Amino acid sequence: MTITMVKKRLANGGACKKCDQAEDMLKTRQLWDRIGRVAWADETNPDSEGNRLAREHGVELAPFFIVEDNGHTKVYTSTVKFAQDLAAQSSAAPTPSSTDSPVRGRLNDPSVVRYSIPADGLERVPPRDVVKQALLAFGEKCGIAFSGAEDVVLIDMALKTGLPFSVFSIDTGRLHPETYRFIDKVRQHYGVEIHLVSPDPLPVEALVRKKGLYSFYEDGHQECCEVRKVSSLRRVLKGYEAWMTGQRRDQSPTRTDLAVVAWDTTQQRSPGELCKFNPLAAWSLSETWNYIRANGVPTNELHERGFISIGCEPCTRTTRPGEHERAGRWWWEDATKRECGLHVPHVDRGAGI
Amino acid sequence: MTITMVKKRLANGGACKKCDQAEDMLKTRQLWDRIGRVAWADETNPDSEGNRLAREHGVELAPFFIVEDNGHTKVYTSTVKFAQDLAAQSSAAPTPSSTDSPVRGRLNDPSVVRYSIPADGLERVPPRDVVKQALLAFGEKCGIAFSGAEDVVLIDMALKTGLPFSVFSIDTGRLHPETYRFIDKVRQHYGVEIHLVSPDPLPVEALVRKKGLYSFYEDGHQECCEVRKVSSLRRVLKGYEAWMTGQRRDQSPTRTDLAVVAWDTTQQRSPGELCKFNPLAAWSLSETWNYIRANGVPTNELHERGFISIGCEPCTRTTRPGEHERAGRWWWEDATKRECGLHVPHVDRGAGI
Amino acid sequence: MTITMVKKRLANGGACKKCDQAEDMLKTRQLWDRIGRVAWADETNPDSEGNRLAREHGVELAPFFIVEDNGHTKVYTSTVKFAQDLAAQSSAAPTPSSTDSPVRGRLNDPSVVRYSIPADGLERVPPRDVVKQALLAFGEKCGIAFSGAEDVVLIDMALKTGLPFSVFSIDTGRLHPETYRFIDKVRQHYGVEIHLVSPDPLPVEALVRKKGLYSFYEDGHQECCEVRKVSSLRRVLKGYEAWMTGQRRDQSPTRTDLAVVAWDTTQQRSPGELCKFNPLAAWSLSETWNYIRANGVPTNELHERGFISIGCEPCTRTTRPGEHERAGRWWWEDATKRECGLHVPHVDRGAGI
Amino acid sequence: MTITMVKKRLANGGACKKCDQAEDMLKTRQLWDRIGRVAWADETNPDSEGNRLAREHGVELAPFFIVEDNGHTKVYTSTVKFAQDLAAQSSAAPTPSSTDSPVRGRLNDPSVVRYSIPADGLERVPPRDVVKQALLAFGEKCGIAFSGAEDVVLIDMALKTGLPFSVFSIDTGRLHPETYRFIDKVRQHYGVEIHLVSPDPLPVEALVRKKGLYSFYEDGHQECCEVRKVSSLRRVLKGYEAWMTGQRRDQSPTRTDLAVVAWDTTQQRSPGELCKFNPLAAWSLSETWNYIRANGVPTNELHERGFISIGCEPCTRTTRPGEHERAGRWWWEDATKRECGLHVPHVDRGAGI
Repeated sequence: MTITMVKKRLANGGACKKCDQAEDMLKTRQLWDRIGRVAWADETNPDSEGNRLAREHGVELAPFFIVEDNGHTKVYTSTVKFAQDLAAQSSAAPTPSSTDSPVRGRLNDPSVVRYSIPADGLERVPPRDVVKQALLAFGEKCGIAFSGAEDVVLIDMALKTGLPFSVFSIDTGRLHPETYRFIDKVRQHYGVEIHLVSPDPLPVEALVRKKGLYSFYEDGHQECCEVRKVSSLRRVLKGYEAWMTGQRRDQSPTRTDLAVVAWDTTQQRSPGELCKFNPLAAWSLSETWNYIRANGVPTNELHERGFISIGCEPCTRTTRPGEHERAGRWWWEDATKRECGLHVPHVDRGAGI
Repeated sequence: MTITMVKKRLANGGACKKCDQAEDMLKTRQLWDRIGRVAWADETNPDSEGNRLAREHGVELAPFFIVEDNGHTKVYTSTVKFAQDLAAQSSAAPTPSSTDSPVRGRLNDPSVVRYSIPADGLERVPPRDVVKQALLAFGEKCGIAFSGAEDVVLIDMALKTGLPFSVFSIDTGRLHPETYRFIDKVRQHYGVEIHLVSPDPLPVEALVRKKGLYSFYEDGHQECCEVRKVSSLRRVLKGYEAWMTGQRRDQSPTRTDLAVVAWDTTQQRSPGELCKFNPLAAWSLSETWNYIRANGVPTNELHERGFISIGCEPCTRTTRPGEHERAGRWWWEDATKRECGLHVPHVDRGAGI
Repeated sequence: MTITMVKKRLANGGACKKCDQAEDMLKTRQLWDRIGRVAWADETNPDSEGNRLAREHGVELAPFFIVEDNGHTKVYTSTVKFAQDLAAQSSAAPTPSSTDSPVRGRLNDPSVVRYSIPADGLERVPPRDVVKQALLAFGEKCGIAFSGAEDVVLIDMALKTGLPFSVFSIDTGRLHPETYRFIDKVRQHYGVEIHLVSPDPLPVEALVRKKGLYSFYEDGHQECCEVRKVSSLRRVLKGYEAWMTGQRRDQSPTRTDLAVVAWDTTQQRSPGELCKFNPLAAWSLSETWNYIRANGVPTNELHERGFISIGCEPCTRTTRPGEHERAGRWWWEDATKRECGLHVPHVDRGAGI
Repeated sequence: MTITMVKKRLANGGACKKCDQAEDMLKTRQLWDRIGRVAWADETNPDSEGNRLAREHGVELAPFFIVEDNGHTKVYTSTVKFAQDLAAQSSAAPTPSSTDSPVRGRLNDPSVVRYSIPADGLERVPPRDVVKQALLAFGEKCGIAFSGAEDVVLIDMALKTGLPFSVFSIDTGRLHPETYRFIDKVRQHYGVEIHLVSPDPLPVEALVRKKGLYSFYEDGHQECCEVRKVSSLRRVLKGYEAWMTGQRRDQSPTRTDLAVVAWDTTQQRSPGELCKFNPLAAWSLSETWNYIRANGVPTNELHERGFISIGCEPCTRTTRPGEHERAGRWWWEDATKRECGLHVPHVDRGAGI
């Protein structure tokens, strides 16, 4: 298989910005060395090779990718799609070593083996190894729940395993514009597809018609979370056998017992059906942000404006100096009730399953 | 029918803020003189009449309303709901004078008469009279399309007719937080129910999964408008026989031929099925804002931050000094193509129908 | 001495907002019980007592204060000025108990006694007692340096001593608009005069003409701090025998040795001439903010937008989650050099003086 | 005279950003063709000519300029300073043609001729020709008063004359941070020195101490304008024989009689002493902004956030749709009194001088 990337060279000698971004993303995903060669489309020279290739394949925008394989030629104009396909290929035939995972991955033979939660609950396993074990076992049947905040570290860790995985975000329709921008930035930076799940319109419309757009300030947030968030989660989780969140124990008094891994029985599933991983459970806020800074992970611009925990726009505020991060969520309610319903505590750690 | 409003008097002698707001809203809706008496719940006196009534009816929050009619007693704790019911009653038996409307209203006998568009197209009729004629003819079968911007004047005008009407807004899921706040402010200020229409999640999810959240910057805005806005409009308009918008001819080169009234055949309807009113078609920006200022109409706070025309957050920007208002919409596209699909030009003025 | 406060009663029965604010401030300053009586100027009754008094004394705005003392009558229309005079009177003849202060206060006989820095450096003395000892010794010859940030706690503590004191702020001409608003809010909330010190225009003009308004990003901040801040400090400190700052050891690696009290020899003074108190030296960020919250101390609105440490606008930025507070100051420079020159480390603790 | 510019070439083949900005500025100032040659300092080659020259002249930052003239060599590391000197040289021996100016310029023989205001008051002369005539007559003895708003067009026009001129701005200490940034952007974009005039600290301190930082909201803006703005103007104007402002007649009901040129007798000067030019007097807001857009003139970012007229931060607000631009200035005062004292109307058009 031979891959040619066509980049555009501007009149001033540099490459076009989108081409450079594409190259960066491929390097981030460790796919850059799969590019056989770069052909330049010189802005000032219509006969340069890149321009010639563009005419030949009827492409109008740089960058693009030409994949030749056994006489077949495929042209990609979407770098994200190209990266997805290339990465899928790379991991198409994974041979997990026995040291990587204590169980045979589901990936190869889903009918035979179920995942067994280790007796130690992965309590002493570093986050990135928890991520790796989850993906070895479940691959793209494991959905990373990305909230548009610092849980982006899970995507960074997942990509670095080189294993397949899925990402989804619950779009409540009330996120900050900055969060939408960030979700798209992550999509482009890492070249991953993110499934944004929109709510069922009818219950949303009924609630808003009856109580307006801000009923949660008076009646509590559960009613709104249910129609915009929790029901979407139920729907999307039906497509997965495992999911993964960025929850941490230090986030809230309601999360102090959070397990690193457990069967999730809150989604009307039986033990053994849906596994939930919280790789960051034992990390602190500082450890999470140290990882972000050390790894150059992109962040939501709201974090530069005083926000720590980020949820829906009307239900999130900045935290003041010395306040705990969850003070910025549903601040008008009692601190012990600040769960949105996505993460109802579950005790079953799947002993013996 | 006797109506008692219970208000709370604070320890400092003033009324509670919500009570005052309720009173203001009822005055705005010209329903205040329907209140027979006010009973005060004195914060410092548990035996005051209002507190006694609250205990008697099991109500915990002020204000509330007690309606006694022929021995029946009904208690309202929602001021919006109370105002709606009261207004509906007021206009239950309208007797439109012949000078008000050139046609018999549909309201009384929908089976017999269809609305006839006057030969002059209402071209010389002042906006508030266009609104009145529309509501006389269609009542609550006429939906006012409220975008969360200066078209709030239509709601103000509609309320002042005392006639029934409906209001809907297309919630694309990408509006500014400020616009959501404004829509709710309008709901509370005028005591009107606003039907927020949410998009069908599947096509939205498909588009976002394939192209991300900002495809419109590259591919044009029509694709996104279709799944978030136009399809919702089609759905909601099925419930109406007429609709009303705040479009004006001075907004755009694409709107110079806008009719004040016309049969809307763009929504897969035949002439005679769906009537569209644009009462402000002939008004300028200045006339619209003069009305807003003169009538104390509430406005979207974005208008204080440089926004004139307001749509979805990623597709709206502020205008600079001396720029035309529509320069802030889909600014990356050609000025003659800046329609979102909600308002495709239609030529059929329905002569003779 | 008899004091009458005239308040305005609005038509709706409540007091006017400025009157209520004035009352709140007097309560904050524990001066409220000095008001003999309140006379109301009823908006709806020109013959009410307050209105009569207003006409009699030629006053047009509420609130105002009439002080009668031994046949003399003085009218105050400025609540801040009234509070200042009243407080000065209260503390005119303080009789410091021996337990309050280990030294005779300067206040009564400045010629005889110099302040002696205690051998223990006040290391174990709670901040509010450090403040009290400073004011007992120096009174209004002690200037509290207020930067417009969380050091507002010093003003709160000082007021609660009931002792005289002075407050100054260095106005560099480049503070955030929000900081100017906060300084004025503090002035009004506590009813204290704040001396804003402006820089000498000539060196500022020379620097800006030569290097523009942002030379510090390239040449370091010392040059700009010198002309806008440090030289102003030198000027203002000439009028004081002691000063007080909100510096804390946990703010910076450059402040770990900060003394609670020391002779300040950096301002071209000899030991014994200028005493510097840092009552919060041993407090952490959290302790400071706990005091703010527990005491309802007003805060700079920037603290709600991600700012912790606050200085000049171009030289301050927000801190991200998990960052140290001083990461928001002169962030482009090395962390060990982030002092503005106001607080050059000084080692002389004045032993034996 | 031979001029060498040393630019840095980055490893990716492009020039460094500061080098490109310097080049752009020199082109803007029409000085680019004075550069004899460009020597490149190649980031990847320490022996490239530019790097060699840097070592030779002890320079550490790119770009820099080497001017060789009759055996003398001068090195500039400040592009602004270099541009200033070069421009001064260019215009050292101007030979104004008789068609350019109706009067002999002062520039050549200041002792003999005084400027005569033409009988027609320059009423029909296009703004850029008014600017040219002013600079031909007064050169750098004419100070352009730059407020940090759209009057930047005067600087653009002045530069394009190639004639010498001066620029000053009154720094009240209360401008928006965005305005300070803009002033510096203009300085760098055009390579002009801007004299920022700071107020005398004593009267400012006295006012603030007595009345706080926002007295203008109660007592009117004149008192504050006097100490922060008008007295600075008086001081700076002493150094000039003429000044120039961006005032326009359409800005305010107080400016409808504004002359294009007049003797300014408001600054304690006699007719013939201080000439005031208002080249844009007859232009509308739209004409001004059309010039800005057509000429790529940089603008204050506040213009993108709803501000039209821009002054001090507490005394400026955004304008709403349909409002006049001056509605954003001193909005709490009567529209006919909104002058800051800088521009007191003057009637003497110098007839007979």
